[in-house]
Amino acid sequence: MSQNYKLEIAYDGTNYGGWQVQPNVLSIQSVLENALQTILRQEISLIGSGRTDAGVHAIGQIAHFRYSNEIDIPRLFYSLNTLIPEEIRIRGIECTSDSFHAQHSAISKCYRYHLSLNTVQDPFRRLYSWHIRKKLNLAAIEEACSYLLGIHDFTCFANEADQGTAARDPIRNMLQATIRQDEHGAYLEFSADGFLYKMVRNIVGTLVEIGSGSRLAVDIPYLLASKDRTKAGQAAPAHGLFLMSVQYPEAS
Amino acid sequence: MSQNYKLEIAYDGTNYGGWQVQPNVLSIQSVLENALQTILRQEISLIGSGRTDAGVHAIGQIAHFRYSNEIDIPRLFYSLNTLIPEEIRIRGIECTSDSFHAQHSAISKCYRYHLSLNTVQDPFRRLYSWHIRKKLNLAAIEEACSYLLGIHDFTCFANEADQGTAARDPIRNMLQATIRQDEHGAYLEFSADGFLYKMVRNIVGTLVEIGSGSRLAVDIPYLLASKDRTKAGQAAPAHGLFLMSVQYPEAS
Repeated sequence: MSQNYKLEIAYDGTNYGGWQVQPNVLSIQSVLENALQTILRQEISLIGSGRTDAGVHAIGQIAHFRYSNEIDIPRLFYSLNTLIPEEIRIRGIECTSDSFHAQHSAISKCYRYHLSLNTVQDPFRRLYSWHIRKKLNLAAIEEACSYLLGIHDFTCFANEADQGTAARDPIRNMLQATIRQDEHGAYLEFSADGFLYKMVRNIVGTLVEIGSGSRLAVDIPYLLASKDRTKAGQAAPAHGLFLMSVQYPEAS
Repeated sequence: MSQNYKLEIAYDGTNYGGWQVQPNVLSIQSVLENALQTILRQEISLIGSGRTDAGVHAIGQIAHFRYSNEIDIPRLFYSLNTLIPEEIRIRGIECTSDSFHAQHSAISKCYRYHLSLNTVQDPFRRLYSWHIRKKLNLAAIEEACSYLLGIHDFTCFANEADQGTAARDPIRNMLQATIRQDEHGAYLEFSADGFLYKMVRNIVGTLVEIGSGSRLAVDIPYLLASKDRTKAGQAAPAHGLFLMSVQYPEAS
């Protein structure tokens, strides 16, 4: 009888074409599937909690795979981290319930988006934050965040899904939307029961327009009500975005 | 009459062959000299406070150059940061006294060395810290640091200087030698009135051997007294090292 295994994964997405296996790009999923197959000598299908786009990073991506035999977990943990590039690190492996599914069992996810607000960008943050030279009104962004909380139709912040991806329910529950200052500038944090395609980056792009004064915070309710992607702001660049964590019911 | 200008520079040294112009490697100095020449239309000789090796980073490297005409400093600051790669950032430019020399006027320098001590390396720290899997005794390292303070002959921690570099006085005054814990592990910080070739990396390599129990902290005074490079530890890797700042007399 096959067993179900859960992985927690961190990665620097800079040099990858995103999480998901796609033709002609190096994906995190394919690097991990190949390494698992090399070690476990069996075809492995690794299912992530969701895709992350090219250049997006992760601190706590979750994935699962099934395997027909018993696994020596500490040994797999060591071999896997030895075999894969240092840009990808397995943070944990555990045996999980048969019903656990990294995508379908998820009850919420948390994303963080880093903004560098120094006049001169810190060169060590260039691949991990969006550098904005304009002065931002963080209080206006904070007010705008408050309008995102709760259950809304987020169509105005959703790009069309890729071919082959089923259209998703655009009604989502935003559980957290905050901005906090840090030594480099600020970071935005969003938790929701699910995110639509490019939703975080489209929200951040719009919030930065609000912070720089080209939109008002009170526009957010109107944008949400419009359900019109063309009304909201441009997507923020991928390299500021981090998938922080995925939450599951306690039993899984 | 020519004017003297002082630059403060931060750089991610990962993709560079070090500070100093050398044949067949991309150096920070050559990138900056080329950009200055393009903007100022004059041959520019940029003199750094000292070289940093291939892969070593800087937060506050200092350099100076002479130029025959008046410079619009805010404009040069903007043009230079636009022209050079994002891995190198000019943090400041100022007009300085005629007698200022980035290397000879320096009275002390501060270096920091980052150690990642988590079981699994944070992928975002892989290029900016040395990952050590062994458990380190930080108290032993702290004790060893105390023996480095003050005026000593640091020959045991100095590699042979490169060809063409004059042999330097091996007597140095170590003003600060500390270890502090941070979220990723720990960092070592050293300030001295000057550092010999590879001195910080050789000290760090030796301190890590002390922390992992293969040497004793009290060996430091004996190593210093031996003046024998072969007695001290291996050099720590370049990518954990940052030149933090260079100090000058107040007038310059």
